Amino acid sequence: MLQKTAQCALEYGRQFIPQGAVADYIPELGKADPNQLGLCLFTKDGQKIMCGDVDQRFTIQSICKVISLATALQCEGFDKVFAKVMMEPSGDAFNSILKLDLASNRPYNPMINAGAIEVVSMLTPRFTFEQLLEYARILCMDDDIVLDEAVYHSEKATGDRNRAIAYLLKSKGVLEGDELKTVDLYFRMCSLSVNARSLAGLGLTIANGGVDPNNGVRLLDERVVRVVKTLMLTCGMYDGSGEFAVRVGIPAKSGVGGGIMGCVENRMGIGTYGPALDEKGNSIGGRQMLEYLSRELHLHIFDSLNA
Amino acid sequence: MLQKTAQCALEYGRQFIPQGAVADYIPELGKADPNQLGLCLFTKDGQKIMCGDVDQRFTIQSICKVISLATALQCEGFDKVFAKVMMEPSGDAFNSILKLDLASNRPYNPMINAGAIEVVSMLTPRFTFEQLLEYARILCMDDDIVLDEAVYHSEKATGDRNRAIAYLLKSKGVLEGDELKTVDLYFRMCSLSVNARSLAGLGLTIANGGVDPNNGVRLLDERVVRVVKTLMLTCGMYDGSGEFAVRVGIPAKSGVGGGIMGCVENRMGIGTYGPALDEKGNSIGGRQMLEYLSRELHLHIFDSLNA
Amino acid sequence: MLQKTAQCALEYGRQFIPQGAVADYIPELGKADPNQLGLCLFTKDGQKIMCGDVDQRFTIQSICKVISLATALQCEGFDKVFAKVMMEPSGDAFNSILKLDLASNRPYNPMINAGAIEVVSMLTPRFTFEQLLEYARILCMDDDIVLDEAVYHSEKATGDRNRAIAYLLKSKGVLEGDELKTVDLYFRMCSLSVNARSLAGLGLTIANGGVDPNNGVRLLDERVVRVVKTLMLTCGMYDGSGEFAVRVGIPAKSGVGGGIMGCVENRMGIGTYGPALDEKGNSIGGRQMLEYLSRELHLHIFDSLNA
Amino acid sequence: MLQKTAQCALEYGRQFIPQGAVADYIPELGKADPNQLGLCLFTKDGQKIMCGDVDQRFTIQSICKVISLATALQCEGFDKVFAKVMMEPSGDAFNSILKLDLASNRPYNPMINAGAIEVVSMLTPRFTFEQLLEYARILCMDDDIVLDEAVYHSEKATGDRNRAIAYLLKSKGVLEGDELKTVDLYFRMCSLSVNARSLAGLGLTIANGGVDPNNGVRLLDERVVRVVKTLMLTCGMYDGSGEFAVRVGIPAKSGVGGGIMGCVENRMGIGTYGPALDEKGNSIGGRQMLEYLSRELHLHIFDSLNA
Repeated sequence: MLQKTAQCALEYGRQFIPQGAVADYIPELGKADPNQLGLCLFTKDGQKIMCGDVDQRFTIQSICKVISLATALQCEGFDKVFAKVMMEPSGDAFNSILKLDLASNRPYNPMINAGAIEVVSMLTPRFTFEQLLEYARILCMDDDIVLDEAVYHSEKATGDRNRAIAYLLKSKGVLEGDELKTVDLYFRMCSLSVNARSLAGLGLTIANGGVDPNNGVRLLDERVVRVVKTLMLTCGMYDGSGEFAVRVGIPAKSGVGGGIMGCVENRMGIGTYGPALDEKGNSIGGRQMLEYLSRELHLHIFDSLNA
Repeated sequence: MLQKTAQCALEYGRQFIPQGAVADYIPELGKADPNQLGLCLFTKDGQKIMCGDVDQRFTIQSICKVISLATALQCEGFDKVFAKVMMEPSGDAFNSILKLDLASNRPYNPMINAGAIEVVSMLTPRFTFEQLLEYARILCMDDDIVLDEAVYHSEKATGDRNRAIAYLLKSKGVLEGDELKTVDLYFRMCSLSVNARSLAGLGLTIANGGVDPNNGVRLLDERVVRVVKTLMLTCGMYDGSGEFAVRVGIPAKSGVGGGIMGCVENRMGIGTYGPALDEKGNSIGGRQMLEYLSRELHLHIFDSLNA
Repeated sequence: MLQKTAQCALEYGRQFIPQGAVADYIPELGKADPNQLGLCLFTKDGQKIMCGDVDQRFTIQSICKVISLATALQCEGFDKVFAKVMMEPSGDAFNSILKLDLASNRPYNPMINAGAIEVVSMLTPRFTFEQLLEYARILCMDDDIVLDEAVYHSEKATGDRNRAIAYLLKSKGVLEGDELKTVDLYFRMCSLSVNARSLAGLGLTIANGGVDPNNGVRLLDERVVRVVKTLMLTCGMYDGSGEFAVRVGIPAKSGVGGGIMGCVENRMGIGTYGPALDEKGNSIGGRQMLEYLSRELHLHIFDSLNA
Repeated sequence: MLQKTAQCALEYGRQFIPQGAVADYIPELGKADPNQLGLCLFTKDGQKIMCGDVDQRFTIQSICKVISLATALQCEGFDKVFAKVMMEPSGDAFNSILKLDLASNRPYNPMINAGAIEVVSMLTPRFTFEQLLEYARILCMDDDIVLDEAVYHSEKATGDRNRAIAYLLKSKGVLEGDELKTVDLYFRMCSLSVNARSLAGLGLTIANGGVDPNNGVRLLDERVVRVVKTLMLTCGMYDGSGEFAVRVGIPAKSGVGGGIMGCVENRMGIGTYGPALDEKGNSIGGRQMLEYLSRELHLHIFDSLNA
């Protein structure tokens, strides 16, 4: 039955593709096929539902912000992380410098670029990229994640705005360590090649309170997971987060590579792929599939039939 | 047992009062006693827990935004309301004009002044103040709510910024009808005299999906309540909403009169009173009591023991 | 010879008309004929050069800011006026609220709407509109200036943004007196019907240090005139003031009615009319005629042949 | 007589020193003696007036923006330079990123850091630092100008905000070439060691239309000088430029090293030194001396006795 609903969601989402467009500010991203669409649901009780282009690899992009935040919270603790970054939705685009320059020394939250770069700067002295890659594989239940070298180099070649952000954080005394090394690690994290399944895996780990339901191993502390889910809910869909929370009500994080990762509390992880993006930078097909599923399966956090 | 936890929460919250200050930009509000603190919990199964200054009347202020939004959604519908106001947290102070002037024609959300005034403009042609007052009494389960004339006149005398917002909305073509009548109705709604019990009542109505648990009467549609709760979660605590969502995880709305109204999905409504405010304009004692209760009673939306 | 240069300037300016458009945010203004163009030069030594549509009446609009500022400086003095309004170019559009809300309690300068409304509020308790009209006639050397009732009513009907600004100033404690009476007087001042000749007359009065060269009567103190000229140079052409100062170098003030008034220190006053505006709100034909004249007649303040 | 007025100006300016403070965001600058004050006037007819600490060397800082702009205009031409940078006063602080991120791809003007860095990027492929140093010596009529190594290194060590600006310009496609090389050249230009005499020399060259009055050699084209003077007048004194233009009316450029360079059209160049700065970053003693001189000697561009 879940399989059938997922299939309908895919058909529903497909209609919206023509209204979107593939990101091209990073040239390598522009090569994606806008008509691809994939949906994957991993439930807590072990079901694995897959529809459409679920094997297609793409880069994780901003969804890596969830992994780096979780890792930083896990090893540095809540207080240290949030001494350097706030927890407020900004109301501005993901790459805006406005609030950082004007209103505060700390980035507004870990889901905008400034906040994510700050968070990665806390990881730089502790972890190599290889260690973080290994950790990403475990959290996503996907051993095949690798660095997409082409996207990484494209990212690096066009990453001046992120370098500007890093230097601005440095100038405000909030970013410690080497700013260019930090940005490089951030670019690598954004260039992890995942697919809809990897994202469903990550979503399930988080939906399940940080415990791998396959083997009962705790991967993340419960409090870390709680913080991550809340920030996904308030800030995970760029400057469309508020509307997504109202309409869909699932903690989710999107990336301009076309992925969205969602986690339905105690029930399932969802991964979607669809590189045609809406004007906020969210996968248009993915967003519509999630809205469809939320309605049909009562996944909204405040749906009384959600249980 | 709940009584005891509530008592401890009150003691805990009391410690923070000296760090806050009573609002005085509306002169009448400045007369409140900063040391008062009250906490009231109404559970779905009929318990009524009360501690401290729960009988003290104060004005509802911004918490009326919840009532006007619910009323507008109920009678105008989702699409009409959100054609005039967005659903995004703004990241700015409640009375900021910045985003309204710069980024958009529509106010960012119904919980900032611009959005609330826009919402009230939709009510003006349909309802008299007396009708809305009656409706507030029902939603709050409190027949004694009246208009606080002194605060209303003080509000009116110092409400130039809200008048500026109304004219700006008018100039952008988004506010229809008479702008001064709209602002007057908004001032009246802000001047409803409630107490911690009224807020617990309102919270319970919303926590219970819009149905009065005492008599089973549906007061608000389920979808209306879902929207309201989501917006309370993302935007209800001024520009401290994001941090409150992370730390407390209870949909809540605060007012500069010192009240906070919270709703714990399917479990209880919470009303707090404490006129000493933090720098964001939220009751400092109220906020701390809610954080205490969330931790002790597992009320966070993403607490695995919340059930 | 001056007549011939003026004629060439008119021909030159005419070419740019198709790149502009008549203002229509005030409906009455939209009725102007975009192809009209007039140029008038009144020299200190008594020459009166006229080309094109110099008799066509139009409303003075923002050029009235020069008259109200001069009047306020004359009767309130430098210190009182500039305690309420700053002297800095804002870099923003004439009707922006951004800086007023964000950066300062005082409007940035008397040439943006916020500053002009503040200045008019100082005149309200001292002068009737009729007195100011009479004063405008004298400064412009034009007895036929009247109130354009149609534009005044159109202005009033669409003036919500200016009302918003007045209330914002009121809320910041910088505007005293009745805000709606102030805005009404401001609308009346904007609706004075002038022509290119009136503006050349006003320009000559100012270029001549405040003395009417026809009869030697001092109309404005020298210091008042100095301040006015400097502010025209730095802020007179909306957010195109900086480029106009570089390219043309003549203290000037434009209005969305299509007029520009310029004053060439100690030499002449210039009035232009051309209702087709550029994207900054300046008459496109007027601006080009002034650039042509500056080059040909060496009128730039820093032109070594200007003498 | 000029000597006596200058002496009075120095005494007058000295009173304001206690209201200012030495810049310390670049540590080396913090070592300056706040009580130093020097004033130097070089007139077109060959007078050299000196009072106070005119031999004290300090770094030129933002005054180098005049030299780099003049050089770029001289070799690239008006159109090429202003295709990359606008000519509008911004109303914001010198190091603000706000407008650059929000309102435009081009920096607002060549006198704010973003604009100056953009201008220096045009010089990088054409000139070595040594060539620019030599050119600065000629324009300032001072062969002893050298690179202050200590300040240069201090500048470099704390220049993250300027690096952020360079990367932001790069990301907007407006800065070509190597951004770090550009910033390095900018830091070197800021670290030229001048004294009040050098600045008077530079001011005289510009006041005299680009011709060295000692030998009649043209150093800068007249049009270049006209543009530079206009931009000094509208943007030369940071976000205090508007008020300085009104009160003083002399095209001037200040630097946080404590210098101000002024040019009185066709009459004289003025150099001042006083490292105690006001809250805008302008030498407080220097600014007051210039206001005094403007009043006493009728130096305001719109003073009728200025001739």
